Order: sequence, then C-alpha cells, then structure tokens
Amino acid sequence: MPASTPTFPPLVDQHCHGVLRAGPDPVAFEGYLTEAHVPQRPAPSPGSAPGDTGPAFSYFDTQLGFAVRRWCAPVLGLEPHCAPGDYLERRAELGTAEVTGRLLRSAGISAFLVDTGLPGPLLTPGELAETAAAEAHEIVRLERLAERAADTARDTHAFLAELSDAVRESARTARGFKSVVAYRCGLDLDPVPPGTSAIYAAADRWLASRVQGGKLSDPVLERHLLWSAVRTGLPLQLHTGFGDPDLRLDRCDPLLLTDFIRATAPYGAPLILLHCYPYHRGAGYLAAVFPHVYADFGLTLTHTGARAGQVLAELLELTPFGKLLFSTDAYGIPELYLVGARLFREAITGLTRQWVERGQWSRGDADRVTEMIAGGTARRLYGL
Amino acid sequence: MPASTPTFPPLVDQHCHGVLRAGPDPVAFEGYLTEAHVPQRPAPSPGSAPGDTGPAFSYFDTQLGFAVRRWCAPVLGLEPHCAPGDYLERRAELGTAEVTGRLLRSAGISAFLVDTGLPGPLLTPGELAETAAAEAHEIVRLERLAERAADTARDTHAFLAELSDAVRESARTARGFKSVVAYRCGLDLDPVPPGTSAIYAAADRWLASRVQGGKLSDPVLERHLLWSAVRTGLPLQLHTGFGDPDLRLDRCDPLLLTDFIRATAPYGAPLILLHCYPYHRGAGYLAAVFPHVYADFGLTLTHTGARAGQVLAELLELTPFGKLLFSTDAYGIPELYLVGARLFREAITGLTRQWVERGQWSRGDADRVTEMIAGGTARRLYGL
Amino acid sequence: MPASTPTFPPLVDQHCHGVLRAGPDPVAFEGYLTEAHVPQRPAPSPGSAPGDTGPAFSYFDTQLGFAVRRWCAPVLGLEPHCAPGDYLERRAELGTAEVTGRLLRSAGISAFLVDTGLPGPLLTPGELAETAAAEAHEIVRLERLAERAADTARDTHAFLAELSDAVRESARTARGFKSVVAYRCGLDLDPVPPGTSAIYAAADRWLASRVQGGKLSDPVLERHLLWSAVRTGLPLQLHTGFGDPDLRLDRCDPLLLTDFIRATAPYGAPLILLHCYPYHRGAGYLAAVFPHVYADFGLTLTHTGARAGQVLAELLELTPFGKLLFSTDAYGIPELYLVGARLFREAITGLTRQWVERGQWSRGDADRVTEMIAGGTARRLYGL
Repeated sequence: MPASTPTFPPLVDQHCHGVLRAGPDPVAFEGYLTEAHVPQRPAPSPGSAPGDTGPAFSYFDTQLGFAVRRWCAPVLGLEPHCAPGDYLERRAELGTAEVTGRLLRSAGISAFLVDTGLPGPLLTPGELAETAAAEAHEIVRLERLAERAADTARDTHAFLAELSDAVRESARTARGFKSVVAYRCGLDLDPVPPGTSAIYAAADRWLASRVQGGKLSDPVLERHLLWSAVRTGLPLQLHTGFGDPDLRLDRCDPLLLTDFIRATAPYGAPLILLHCYPYHRGAGYLAAVFPHVYADFGLTLTHTGARAGQVLAELLELTPFGKLLFSTDAYGIPELYLVGARLFREAITGLTRQWVERGQWSRGDADRVTEMIAGGTARRLYGL
Repeated sequence: MPASTPTFPPLVDQHCHGVLRAGPDPVAFEGYLTEAHVPQRPAPSPGSAPGDTGPAFSYFDTQLGFAVRRWCAPVLGLEPHCAPGDYLERRAELGTAEVTGRLLRSAGISAFLVDTGLPGPLLTPGELAETAAAEAHEIVRLERLAERAADTARDTHAFLAELSDAVRESARTARGFKSVVAYRCGLDLDPVPPGTSAIYAAADRWLASRVQGGKLSDPVLERHLLWSAVRTGLPLQLHTGFGDPDLRLDRCDPLLLTDFIRATAPYGAPLILLHCYPYHRGAGYLAAVFPHVYADFGLTLTHTGARAGQVLAELLELTPFGKLLFSTDAYGIPELYLVGARLFREAITGLTRQWVERGQWSRGDADRVTEMIAGGTARRLYGL
Repeated sequence: MPASTPTFPPLVDQHCHGVLRAGPDPVAFEGYLTEAHVPQRPAPSPGSAPGDTGPAFSYFDTQLGFAVRRWCAPVLGLEPHCAPGDYLERRAELGTAEVTGRLLRSAGISAFLVDTGLPGPLLTPGELAETAAAEAHEIVRLERLAERAADTARDTHAFLAELSDAVRESARTARGFKSVVAYRCGLDLDPVPPGTSAIYAAADRWLASRVQGGKLSDPVLERHLLWSAVRTGLPLQLHTGFGDPDLRLDRCDPLLLTDFIRATAPYGAPLILLHCYPYHRGAGYLAAVFPHVYADFGLTLTHTGARAGQVLAELLELTPFGKLLFSTDAYGIPELYLVGARLFREAITGLTRQWVERGQWSRGDADRVTEMIAGGTARRLYGL
C-alpha cells in the first residue's frame, strides 16, 4: 500500500472527538456515515449485495460509505468494497475493542487533539492515545464550559466567575479552544468584545430562561467566550462550513468572520478555521492575508471521498502551505480516523506527484509541504 | 461511440420543456444556445469558417455551442465540429421534423417529464413521446396555474377557488409540480405557510393591479402555491442557480431555502433542486442532510460542455448517490436533449472509470450509481 | 519550452500596474508575493534550503512563490526551483534594470494596459513599453481622479468641475477606466446615478472631513464616478474578488453588481470584471447573459500557480469565449508579468490539448479561442 510507506510523515489529527466505548450496533452504524439526523431502520443483512436495501435510501451510498468499505474492510480481513452487510457482520464478530484497535493503529496518527465537548460514552483522550499507541491532548469546547457553569452556579455573578475560572484553568491544561458559534448564532458576529454590563444582562437572561442542560446560543455570551479564549493566546478552533442540519450553511461562510479576524489580529492567538467546505477557497484567502489565520479540512476530505484530492487542491490554491492543517473530525466510529488519514495521504501524494511530474513543484518542496500539513505546523502551533 | 453502448441504462429526463413545432430559422437558432436575451442578427453563412462572424460576438463560441457542433453534426450526417453555417444549412435542408426525430431518437431517453409552463408553439408531451419513441408525463408549473386562474376568475374568491381546484386536478393528472419562485421573488422566502387573510389580501392586491397576462411575483401568493403543492405530497421541482438575466443569481442560492426545507420536512413531499450551479455544492449538502431533498443538474451540464465531468464530480461530493437526478432542461431545439444526454453519459462514464481504475470505487457500485442517476431514482420518485 | 513556441499568440496584458524603478531589496521582495500586509523580516540567506527560515512562516511557501522560482530562475541563469536565498542573491547581482529587462522581454506580452493609480516609484507606461519592447497605454483609476481634484480644489463647485474635466480629458487620452469601489464600499451599490444635489452634498461632506491625501470611500461619489465613466462609453474595469485585507471578500462578489449591470446595459460601455476569484463562476454567468460584461483573471492565475489550469477551466464553463481577457495584475516586481504570462500559456495549452484529444473541441477552435483570450478580444475592446 504505497500510501503507508515509511517515508510518509506521521500525522497530527488536530481536530477529532473520540470513539464509542461499545458498539455501535449494525442498526446505528449508518448514522455515523452522515451529518443527517438519521431515523434508525434495519441494517443491511450479511450476504446481501451493495444497494440491496429495498426501496429505502442508504447512507452507505455516499462517498464516505464507499471510502469506508474501501479502506477499512482490508484492515478487518475483508475484500475492499465488500457488501455493507458483510462489513457489519465482521465488525460485530471481531468486537468493538479489536475493531477500534486495528483501525486506529493503521491510521498512522501520532498525536490527537481531542475536542471533548461532544456527549456520549466515548474513549477519553488518554484511552484513545493508549489504544492508538499515540499521544493525545485536549481541546476545550467553549460552549460546554458555559453550559457546565450554568448547570451548577447559584446566580449570575457565580456563573461568570466560574466561567472565568474554567477558561483560565483550561488554558493551563488544554492545548486550545474550540467554538461552535457557527451552529448557535451563525458567523456574522458583532466583532468587538461585549462590555461588562452587556455580559451580565445576557447571563441574567440566559440563566433565567434556561432549563437544566440547555445549550448556549446567546450571541453576547458567545462573543464573551470567544474573546475570553482569544485573550489566553491559545489557538482557537472555529467550526465553519458544513455540518449537521442544525446549522444554516450560508451563515457558516468563514468570510463572515472577517471583522472578528481583523479585531483579534493584535492578540496573537491563532484562529483555525475548521472544515470550511464549500467555502474553503474563501478560507484560503483569509489564511493568505491574515497572519494569525489557519485553515483545516477535517470533515471535508472524509465526506468527499474519491473527490478529496480535488477539494484539497482547491484549498492549496491560496492557503499558504504553512497555514493548512490535517484533521479527521472523527467521531464515534474508528473508521473515520482511518478514512480521514488515508484520504489525505492519497490526496496529497497524488497532487504533489502530478505537480512534480509537470515541473510545477520540486520533489523537495513537495515533501516539505506534505510534512507541514501532515503535522509539522500543528506541532509548532500547539507546542507538541 | 462507446457512450451509447447497449449497457448504458435508459435515461429519465426529469425536467424539460419540449421542442418547437417548426424552425427555428438560422437567425433565431443562436438564441437557444444561451440564457441571454439575444437580439437577432445575421446567421453565419454556409461555408464560412467558425468564428467568421465579423466583429460581432457569437453564442456558438461557448461550451454549449461547441458541444452542439460535436454531438449533433454527426447525427445530421456532418463531420463533428463542422462550421456553424454548414450546420444551420443542413438543418434547414432536412427540415424540422426530420431533425427533431433524428436528434431525439439518438438521445437514449426513455421517459420525459415535461414542464408545460413555457410559452411557444411547442410539441405537447404526447407528441414529444411519439417523436422520441418514449413515454412522457406532465410537470405542472405553479405560477402558470395562478396566472391562468387570474385570467378568467371574476373576483378574488373565485380566483382562489379555481386555483385550489387547479392544484387538486393537477395532482391527479401530473407527476409533480415546478416553481420559478427563484425568478419571481428570489429564494429567501418566509418559510411558513401564509394565513388565509394574508392570502386573500395578496390576491386582492394582485388582481386589482394586474394586466391580462401579467406574471405572478407576489411573495405571499408564491408561498401559498408552494405550500399547496407540498400538501399534495407530489414531488416539487424548484429552480435554483443560474438561468436567464431576469433572475439575480445571488438570490437563487438553494441554501436560502434552508428554513423552507426544514418547515416542509414533516410533509414528505420530495423537493428537487434544479440546476444549482454555481451553488451545486450547497445543494449537495442539502440533499445529504435533509431526507426529502434531491438535486438535479439540468441546465448545468448542457452549458458547461467540456467541463461537465468536473461539475458533475462536484455534485457527487456530498450528494448521496440516490439523491441525484439526470435532466436536460431542453427547450425549443432538439439539440439540447442530445447534448444533455451525451454530456451526462460521457461525464459519468469518465468519472466512474477513473475512480474504479484507482480502486476508489468498485465497478459494481459504479454501474449501480450510474443507473440511479440516469433514471432509477426518478422512476421511484415519480412513480414511472 | 513548448509554451513559448512561436505559434503562441502575442499577449495583451489588459490590467497591470508597472515595475519598481529600483529594488526591491531582498527583505522587501517577499511582500510582493502576497496580498497580505507583510511586516518586514530577514530575507532567506543564499545557500539555505527552501523553507529554512527558522520558525517564521514564509510567503515563498505559496503557489506564487513556487511559480516564481520555477519560471523566473532560468531566465536569470539559475535552475528552476532554486532556493529563495539564491534567487534573491542572483537578483541583486544582476541589478534591477537587467532583471526587469530579462523578465519582461521573456513574457511574450505585446501590449500593456497600465492602471496608473497605484503609488510608488514605478516605471511609467512609456518606460515599461520601452523596456519590454512592446506598446503601453493608460487605464485611469477613477478614485485617483477624485483624490487629486480634492487635493487642489478650493471648494465643492471647483472640485466637481475639475473632476468632470479630468474624466473628460482621461477619456481622450486613456483606453479605459478602473474602479476600486470594491475596496472602498463593497459592490452592493445603489445602482442608479446619484442626482446633482446628492452629489453636491456628498462632496461637501467629504471635502470638509478629508485630510490631505485621504482616500475616497463615499458611496455617492463612487457612484458618480462610475456613472461618469460609463457615460464616456470607454471600457470600465472593476475590481471584484480577492485582493489585500483592506477589502471584505464577501462584499466583492461580482453578482452584487447585477443591478448596476442591468442599469448600465443601455449605455454600451463594456464592464470588465477583474480577478473574480473565488466568485469567478458567477462572473462567467454575468458575462454569458449581459452583452456588455467581460471577465478577466489577472490576480487569480498568478496566485493559484500549479492550479491555474483548473481555475481557468472554471472560468471557461459559462463565460463565452469572446468575453474572457488575459491580464497579469503585475505590480512592483517584473516576476509577476512573467509568471502571469507563463501560467496562462501553460493553462490554456493544457486545457485545449486535453479537450481536443478527447474530441470535445476541434484544434481550429482551440487555437481561435486561445488567440481571443490572449489578446484578440482586448485589441478589439480597447481599440489597439
């Protein structure tokens, strides 16, 4: 398998979420192949042909579904592109621990930066590291800090004090912050930090109306969180581009962040634009003209499969080569780590081979750029 | 011609408009190669070289113009890429009936879904079917129902009652509805159904100000039409993306429909996003995360010609393979059916061959996905 | 070098800015490889490997940086892709005059249309022409006319009279106008010409608040300038798409000009959309449906380097072939002329070769379209 030759540099997965402790069962598996909210329905049976799912539509019939059957089946001892039912049967036969171990250790990832803000019975960063024989570090999701503080604080003052402590403590223990403000408010933010009285008023309102466990979507508190993170100087990851149907994609164009980017430039904290698709060319522009802006392609390569090379190529138009970061955005199933890693290796290898053959790049530059994107820039940025 | 080998599945053209009964004459022909409103000017003469049109600019010098000379000339007994003047001379020599018959029967289309809402002396769906040795069904354009009801109704009450009857009757006889709300109001609609009094007030206003034959562009009545269609449960086709200069392209981004899509999800009626270019990646996202959303590429492949493969590939990034539909959007001249069909065949054949050669897809999956897009999904969706 | 075979047609660079009279020194050179505002820092040393710049990030590590090393090094007697430090050393050794002469004369450009509105000790159009053994003509930047009139006029009446004279005089001596309204106000303009009293009021306000040398950004005066230019009937170039961080890219989508384009259609003045990236497909649509609209790709090919072929291909989807214009947007360093010219030649040669090999285009059409884009259309448009 030429993509895993020893010369390919080790990967730093700068944005991921962890793997389920058990399962998923065959019925739930398909839900991890899509960003849609999928109603559960019968899983494909072993022995059935691909697509043999009756009248219903299958999320196995996507670029990601095809990529899973291609890259993961051989690691579980099956033929590439075997039928989905056979793949799920084999998965159940081997058991979660064996499947997770095999897939993670095949991915060639040497370090994980884990956004621990997603719910579910997931492996901790430490367990993930051990299973994959790699290192792992935490990225703290800002909205979770606020939601946890709100769950326990007895009043507004205590809430804001706890939140402030939590940001300070996270800056000590984690490698960076993550925000999903794209989901909660869209990216067309008022760019300036809110004043103290506005923050208090917003916290009053939110705490008064909130039910236990309720999500943060107040725009003033979101801005307070973003500015609190920026002031720590740590890298701040921002969801941009596509995701699940809770967001409005046209409000997740990273260019909507332009004024926030300008306002934060003097603070030095790196801003990392996650995913970006289909606005990745605009993200490349931001990375090109603002020194503290970086671009990532997590979810994007994974979900575009056979097209990953072309999409990566579009990111490599304007993005300076030292400003682009590999990640998988993997969540729930270990297949997403392997697929994300393999698609990136195949994509960058194919692109640079072609550019070198045509004389457009030198071989030395190609190897150097590959190393930067695979992990070199992430190591520098997060101090690994 | 490998693209028409017997193994290529028969096509369902899920969005088209019909062919002129006579003509067009050489002077008018060029107007069918573009979405621009073209002033008539002398046609290229037989025997003149391509581009030999004096100082004026020619719409033959477009991807579509080149594709017509490539694919249609041989069917009329000429060399591919013959001069435009020679092509038009041969066309006149053979006569409309012969040209239409030859081009339609070469297209490999087994079923047509005809939007009958465009004006002009066009073949009916039945005549189209007979000429092409295929089946044809009607898609009813919502705005035409309202405009016809307004032409005859004596008051607002009668207008709304006739409109309601017309929608009900169409649901019985047609296979789906089509809306051009993108042209009339843009896609940034208030997503909820309008109330009865708002509908009455809007109808009063429109009928009072309307001259006979006037087009509907009232946003309340447009929403009333869309919701009337959705409640029938039939597929609803929506123009999105580029078209003629009567629209503002930036108001035709299908992502502007997101809230309408969310609001209609419980009703089950499939929504088909037509054309989509250059917002086709956003359309793919909508098809990926909303179960009732589908994407089409009618006008898009036809007008991008030699680039059709790359554009189709972009649609195949996020769109689940069971959610993408072939169409030609052909109107006026039979060339557009043949060109749309050939460009799709060549594009999907080229893409899947490449993906199979690289091991990214299996051959079986490639054939299965080709069949879905060519017509399988449309047959299921429209009950053919 | 097949791209410079004698059969390639001479180029008309329809949008460029001129070359520095002296320098830049190695420290400043890197600033010309990016649209970012770059703080000056040590230049790479001769003998150091590419990327050997310590922890700091280098703008040599971009598609443009790689393209400069590829195409320009051999013209200065170095190996393609030599180290940046060696390139800069050789550049200093040869001296500005020799470097400028060699690079300009290698570019194959027979005519320059120079936007003289950028500051700096740059060669005049006449000097550029002489150095390159070509012809050169002026394009007048509208905002500079207003700023110069404001610098000298003693009151509002005199300012507006001087401005009117300056537009009239420029229409006599220059080949066209250029506007950077995208930078100053964004492109979402009120499309209609402002009335006389609105113009007077805006001029009063601007002159009262302006400090000597201050830039124009008043939207009423910007509209007055645009309409003054349109009324001369000369070509009007409009910056659209990406540029330096002074603009908000999402406000530079050429589709935002749609209503202005509709309003100006009856006047006949050609509108040329510059750069366009990443909104170039929308620009292609505008060129396809509005007879007086043209598209250019100046900055875009230069900055996307190895990807120039794919980006040009996207422009060639909807843009009628007689509506697309070559330019380099070169500014400051002669490298940008050579790189812009070579990337275009390689891109169009590669695309047309592929399309001809696949039977999609004829060889004759390919040569004819190449000639149009290279310079034929520009010669007709600007009366060269």
